[in-house]
Amino acid sequence: MQHILVLGAGLSSSALIRYLLQQASQVDWRITVADVSKKAAEQKIDGSLYAMAVQLDVANETEVQQLIKQHDLVLSLLPPMLHVAIARQCIAHQKHLVTASYITPEMQALHQDAAKAGVLLLNECGLDPGIDHLSAMKIIDEIHAQGGEVTSFKSFCGGLVAPEFDDNPWNYKFTWNPRNVVLAGQATAKYLEKGIVKYIPPRYLFENLQEVNVNGLGVLEGYANRDSLNYITPYGIETAHTVLRGTLRMKGFCEAWNLLVKLGLTDDTFTIEHANTFTYRSLLNAFVPGTNMEVLEQRTAQFLQLDINSEAFDKLRWLGICDKTPIALAKATPAQILQQLLQQKWKLNEGELDMIVMKHEIQYTTDKPHTIISELVVKGESQQYTAMANTVGLPMAIAAKLILLNKIDIRGVAMPLHKQFYEPILIELSTFGITFSEKEI
Amino acid sequence: MQHILVLGAGLSSSALIRYLLQQASQVDWRITVADVSKKAAEQKIDGSLYAMAVQLDVANETEVQQLIKQHDLVLSLLPPMLHVAIARQCIAHQKHLVTASYITPEMQALHQDAAKAGVLLLNECGLDPGIDHLSAMKIIDEIHAQGGEVTSFKSFCGGLVAPEFDDNPWNYKFTWNPRNVVLAGQATAKYLEKGIVKYIPPRYLFENLQEVNVNGLGVLEGYANRDSLNYITPYGIETAHTVLRGTLRMKGFCEAWNLLVKLGLTDDTFTIEHANTFTYRSLLNAFVPGTNMEVLEQRTAQFLQLDINSEAFDKLRWLGICDKTPIALAKATPAQILQQLLQQKWKLNEGELDMIVMKHEIQYTTDKPHTIISELVVKGESQQYTAMANTVGLPMAIAAKLILLNKIDIRGVAMPLHKQFYEPILIELSTFGITFSEKEI
Repeated sequence: MQHILVLGAGLSSSALIRYLLQQASQVDWRITVADVSKKAAEQKIDGSLYAMAVQLDVANETEVQQLIKQHDLVLSLLPPMLHVAIARQCIAHQKHLVTASYITPEMQALHQDAAKAGVLLLNECGLDPGIDHLSAMKIIDEIHAQGGEVTSFKSFCGGLVAPEFDDNPWNYKFTWNPRNVVLAGQATAKYLEKGIVKYIPPRYLFENLQEVNVNGLGVLEGYANRDSLNYITPYGIETAHTVLRGTLRMKGFCEAWNLLVKLGLTDDTFTIEHANTFTYRSLLNAFVPGTNMEVLEQRTAQFLQLDINSEAFDKLRWLGICDKTPIALAKATPAQILQQLLQQKWKLNEGELDMIVMKHEIQYTTDKPHTIISELVVKGESQQYTAMANTVGLPMAIAAKLILLNKIDIRGVAMPLHKQFYEPILIELSTFGITFSEKEI
Repeated sequence: MQHILVLGAGLSSSALIRYLLQQASQVDWRITVADVSKKAAEQKIDGSLYAMAVQLDVANETEVQQLIKQHDLVLSLLPPMLHVAIARQCIAHQKHLVTASYITPEMQALHQDAAKAGVLLLNECGLDPGIDHLSAMKIIDEIHAQGGEVTSFKSFCGGLVAPEFDDNPWNYKFTWNPRNVVLAGQATAKYLEKGIVKYIPPRYLFENLQEVNVNGLGVLEGYANRDSLNYITPYGIETAHTVLRGTLRMKGFCEAWNLLVKLGLTDDTFTIEHANTFTYRSLLNAFVPGTNMEVLEQRTAQFLQLDINSEAFDKLRWLGICDKTPIALAKATPAQILQQLLQQKWKLNEGELDMIVMKHEIQYTTDKPHTIISELVVKGESQQYTAMANTVGLPMAIAAKLILLNKIDIRGVAMPLHKQFYEPILIELSTFGITFSEKEI
């Protein structure tokens, strides 16, 4: 019998746990779901005979250690910053770990120790990062197998609202952690463009847009995401002159979001001590040059070098940042105040579904140049089994199964780049309707 | 006999230590100068009979504790982040502390404990913060004494090169910690303008300039510095509709500096792993949209919306950021790379002197409106006794003397705002040529 530990029973765990429970009835698995809320864990296991729910305080190292010792494999959906401590415990007790988080330098530093202990610390095995790696590596390996050379690699992914529920001027609703959305783009993005390393500081991130045409959805827009240079060597695409990973939004979103950035409303570096003495309007006034409240809209438009009747300005107004509504937070950063407002405005309502869109555009040469387009559009099943929960949780869960079935011989700190991962995982994902359409143009 | 401990024997300690040694021969003082370099400490005490030099590893808590226990008062010129730990030791052993650093929330939190122990933790007692407080509070107290109400408070200070050695297009040389200069303006500034709280994010800091006319120097420019709102209550100027503290530069500096900010070259948030594979030119190219190296100057000017023949663009070129010179750092942030370049270009050469400029402009009403202008211009004595070392070190040293002479009954965490401080310190500073010219207009 094999024992699997799932750390975290939040929103994103639904699909992962459902998959494990379904498998458990066929193979000899026992699942433990641990969460700070035992009730949340209980809800997720839904009375399964193969699973139990436990309450866990992740700050309690002894408790975490005891749990890890009793299991064969750990799947963690906890906040990324907790993963290095968990990985250390996994190495100490020779248990494999699967996460959907980016590999940090601290995680990477555990590689030798993990390999020596015969442990696999598999990270970046969710959606983005995760499915993007799986699907890209399948194409890249095929190109290399036919003697081709990748010359350009662009990959975009976005978590959006399904078109039938897209009814606001931003064409966006929160389908994932709102804080991550508000704080996206606070770091300098790095990528390769025609052989030149490019750095895009946060202030220009939402101005450097790529048009991304997606079959059935029209033209979306993508902005550069984090450090694309990091993937050149792992992907084996040193021949590429252009390497860009980006985030997708519906057209017009980035221009308007950039206005919030320009205004300073996404600033998370300082706390306003008595935020509740402000209205949204007086907060805006604090960031816009000048003092005459009567003409705040005009001053804002002028400051942003924007037509007051433009769609972008309408989006700002629609959010309510010009309204005299009091701010309901006692002490908060501008980003926290904005997030609270957006959570009301960009709420995915009861019965509404999300959508995941991913697109790779890969150019390569053999005796002639080629372009491969690979697209994925996934809509949510329900409000519990969202497209986001399914596309993050299923790759993790399937990878866990492969590891427990001894199908994976990779050890140490890894991303799912090898055929051992992408081949079986992509096949099984397609049984859940997560299927790329690929064409060469 | 009273024992004084000076922590730190760096550049800024010269005037402070000289003053203490001079006093020591008249009063019954013994001075210990502790530094990570015993040699630096020995050079500063210069064979004085009243002083000794010790080597100190500030990370060694026991060593620090032993030293503090043996003295009656501690003057610290160590990096600000070390001051809370030192302050805790001072409370534990009932010793007074004097620093020139800003009061952080962590320092402020020690107030009750310090007061209970009968200890004074005097901070912000250098130049800025320091002399600005002393000179402003003298004026503000006088206004209040005649029943006036302060309506506007603006105060500017800058460390510059003396005009006779000002021979570069930036009209600036490093006269103080270069890293602090490069990283100035990475936080949102806060101030009060016509009754409205104003936040200026870093990206606009060097665009929001105030003209500051200084007698004999012409029109300089000032940009908002940190959180001016913090001083409204301590200064007792709740009646003011405008409260702004700023940093002074020669005219044209901020416009050109803002270009470096816009380019991303002051970014200290990410590390370039193989910086030595870049030239200054290829680094610039990484930040400017486009890829054609041949027309990098034109692309840069266009990106910055600047005439390529403008003075501001000339300043950039003069720095060498368009040059094909290799970068000599293996691994560095853009800000660190820029700093290394600026340290060559903005070097205060052998025999050149610095200058401190401070200006307060205070408006108040009695039965009618008044404006008081108070100005200070101090030039360096020599390369050791710079204007900066003198104006930072002397207020600290004089405050220490007053405390040891039991002239100060204030306890807890404090700034030098009270008459007990400003009256004797300003009088003694004037004997060193540090004298404000005050006029009412």
